Amino acid sequence: MNRRMVFYMIGQLVKAEAVLLLLPLAVSVIYGESCVVPFAVTVLAAIAIGFAFTLISRPRSKVIFAREGFVIVAASWLLMSVIGAMPFVISREIPNFFDAFFETVSGFTTTGASVVTNLDALSKGVLFWRSFTHWVGGMGVLVFIMAVVPSSADRSIHIMKAEVPGPIVGKLVPRVRQTARILYLIYIGLTLLQTTLLLCGGMNLFESLIHAFGTAGTGGFGVKADSIASYSPYIQWVITVFMLIFGVNFNLYYFLLLRRFRTVFKSGELWTYLGIYLVAVTVVAVNIYGIYGNVGECIRLSAFQVSSISTTTGFATADFNNWPDLSKAVLFVVMFTGGMAGSTAGGLKTSRIVLLFKSIKREFSRMLHPRSVSVVKFEGKPVDDVTLHSVGTYFSLYIGVFIGIFLLVAVDNFDFETSISAVAACINNIGPGFGAVGPMGSYAGFSAFSKVVLSLAMLLGRLELYPIMITLSPSTWAKR
Amino acid sequence: MNRRMVFYMIGQLVKAEAVLLLLPLAVSVIYGESCVVPFAVTVLAAIAIGFAFTLISRPRSKVIFAREGFVIVAASWLLMSVIGAMPFVISREIPNFFDAFFETVSGFTTTGASVVTNLDALSKGVLFWRSFTHWVGGMGVLVFIMAVVPSSADRSIHIMKAEVPGPIVGKLVPRVRQTARILYLIYIGLTLLQTTLLLCGGMNLFESLIHAFGTAGTGGFGVKADSIASYSPYIQWVITVFMLIFGVNFNLYYFLLLRRFRTVFKSGELWTYLGIYLVAVTVVAVNIYGIYGNVGECIRLSAFQVSSISTTTGFATADFNNWPDLSKAVLFVVMFTGGMAGSTAGGLKTSRIVLLFKSIKREFSRMLHPRSVSVVKFEGKPVDDVTLHSVGTYFSLYIGVFIGIFLLVAVDNFDFETSISAVAACINNIGPGFGAVGPMGSYAGFSAFSKVVLSLAMLLGRLELYPIMITLSPSTWAKR
Repeated sequence: MNRRMVFYMIGQLVKAEAVLLLLPLAVSVIYGESCVVPFAVTVLAAIAIGFAFTLISRPRSKVIFAREGFVIVAASWLLMSVIGAMPFVISREIPNFFDAFFETVSGFTTTGASVVTNLDALSKGVLFWRSFTHWVGGMGVLVFIMAVVPSSADRSIHIMKAEVPGPIVGKLVPRVRQTARILYLIYIGLTLLQTTLLLCGGMNLFESLIHAFGTAGTGGFGVKADSIASYSPYIQWVITVFMLIFGVNFNLYYFLLLRRFRTVFKSGELWTYLGIYLVAVTVVAVNIYGIYGNVGECIRLSAFQVSSISTTTGFATADFNNWPDLSKAVLFVVMFTGGMAGSTAGGLKTSRIVLLFKSIKREFSRMLHPRSVSVVKFEGKPVDDVTLHSVGTYFSLYIGVFIGIFLLVAVDNFDFETSISAVAACINNIGPGFGAVGPMGSYAGFSAFSKVVLSLAMLLGRLELYPIMITLSPSTWAKR
Repeated sequence: MNRRMVFYMIGQLVKAEAVLLLLPLAVSVIYGESCVVPFAVTVLAAIAIGFAFTLISRPRSKVIFAREGFVIVAASWLLMSVIGAMPFVISREIPNFFDAFFETVSGFTTTGASVVTNLDALSKGVLFWRSFTHWVGGMGVLVFIMAVVPSSADRSIHIMKAEVPGPIVGKLVPRVRQTARILYLIYIGLTLLQTTLLLCGGMNLFESLIHAFGTAGTGGFGVKADSIASYSPYIQWVITVFMLIFGVNFNLYYFLLLRRFRTVFKSGELWTYLGIYLVAVTVVAVNIYGIYGNVGECIRLSAFQVSSISTTTGFATADFNNWPDLSKAVLFVVMFTGGMAGSTAGGLKTSRIVLLFKSIKREFSRMLHPRSVSVVKFEGKPVDDVTLHSVGTYFSLYIGVFIGIFLLVAVDNFDFETSISAVAACINNIGPGFGAVGPMGSYAGFSAFSKVVLSLAMLLGRLELYPIMITLSPSTWAKR
């Protein structure tokens, strides 16, 4: 283990966070709020910690391997969340550390699960930081560093693989740094486009930015207790469409820019993603017709909620907690399918669903014709057995981790529906679930223990299990 | 496809069912009940249908392959359930065909989910048949035919593989017929032993047989509305222990008979099975202490319920519907782990859980050392990649089927807990779930559509997905 390099990269990250914290600080200054001080203190603390790490730990070699990649990502995200929680605690707007930590992890992991019961009491600076963490966590902070800092690490693809979601992480262009830059430019461009469209709908600049951050990162933190419900249908449709847009693999946007339309059009993952979406929207819209009795409204509500849950964003325009069982069942299922790989969305990712289906199909033919050999293809390319097996194993591990966390959270003795949906909403980085954690509820009622466990679930989900689990495994640290 | 052989084997099975139906007929005669006629009619019908199949369809070749094995098993189980439902319908004790079909499938698949709301209204003959289906379905009817009828089919291992649960079906002795005989002899021996022990506890012969059938098949049909709750602690402990015994791989009993104690003692699957059981019993016992306040009672209730659910039997001595969330969560999880492969229990089977864990462990080491090669061993023997991959694929398919059926059942608009636990209880062949289908509830409230869907779920679970799915797949029937 190249420990010096691990510490060095973590130091780099903390410095980057100090820079990012200047934005909410500026917002506080503009609005003349008292939370200027907490932000300033946190920035200074982050700078001090960051330089302490990078100065003390000068790496002799910048080469990192898979193991270092996992540890850097896991440790960075943990430390980033602890530092990110400081403004909440120091400003006493979320005075309890466990609550503030939960809220920050929920922000960075783009979950959007909240322990805040009265959003009106939060200052603009804190609201801004809370939503900005979504935007930062969506594409990944370490990817950001790679895009900005020249040659920060050799073989930095290992960091990218650990931080960017999906079973197959590829470079768009030969250089990792260039790939990271392209991704961030697309991300910034789409965020600005959405902000503009929200402004056109009469939303003020502050709220437009907040909601664009929440949409872009597929996070879901907003500024109102009823989320998006009280905004105009135009605003709701803009957010519906952009949630879907940010659930798409960013590689496809790059191909669009290169005018490689054929590649985009032939993407099996894209069609599966849209197919699942349309089927779910239709089923839910028909199923809730009895409640609303208006076709247009049913479609709008269904399109929004399914978009929000299936892209793991978590905004809401209706209390789907009160919807019929079938609609809730559909939402529960799309919680797990999630968005496409290489997007900012959580969940299992559409590509894994596609590969699992293809594995199953091959298994059927293998059972009937044991000696036949069939090659599984994905996006036109053959997929090797190791990758296919990895996807199956990932799925098993995902369900296993889900069950483990469900058992721990059940100790709090909420009802079955609340417990199981809270865990699903956290591990898949969605936010709202059913029961007490429904779209109009909050996570405030959970014990400190459950909040820590659910924070871990959010990190496990966002970083796709391995970085956290490998870092927590004693064998990673054993000397050979 | 050797269609003649398929029809021939189905005919054999229907004839075997006619023979088995003589037992409840005899019970009806002994008790002088009016359901003698329905049973007699069904026996005659079964004989007629059986001979029609075997006489019309004389196979030129007795050779069968995997495809024929799957189709024979799936079609046999379906037809067997339709014929088995006839006495219920004709006697008007369960007059609705869908209800009777559900009850029969629930019996043969050893699920024990019931639509009967008043058990006292059923005649002894019908009660006997209902529980006897558990015993017949537990070890498998086709395995029974193989044990009894000499050389019924060449390569009959394909039938055994399709009917006996578990990822790796092995022959105990070189000949399939001999293996089937050994399994049935152990099964009969253990059933008789339990019957004797129940008789010693003061239970009458009829009820002792009923409960021994329900335990041996890991089914769960009883004779009382409160299941086993009103019997003595001695009876409850006998059933607790025998449920656990019937959840063990029968191969191990064969090794015990051969005095190969070392093989039994070194079985990783056995220790995992017992480990899961003990951990679950302890957690539940501690968790329910607040309700009962008596250590002995808590242990007895927990040991019984966990044994019942984890072996997928479904008897109950307490309404665990009212237990704290953690206990329900534990029971929900052990619903899926199930018993050992090669036992009469349902669920995923312990061996698959063990192999999934080993796959995950290997994946971790592969991520850290991409070039390393590690061999997964199970019960001391190396497991090839195809088997490991199959287990992962089976798990994905299992969860996929579970989700699909959950969505279909959710149409009935029960609450989330009822829907999800009903599907879990049916696909894992348990019986009782939570909410409306709790141990003191029933499946009577579901629509005919849901009853058919849940019947399918029970068959899918008992036959481990592939036989049913391959038979229902159009490509199986396509001409080449």
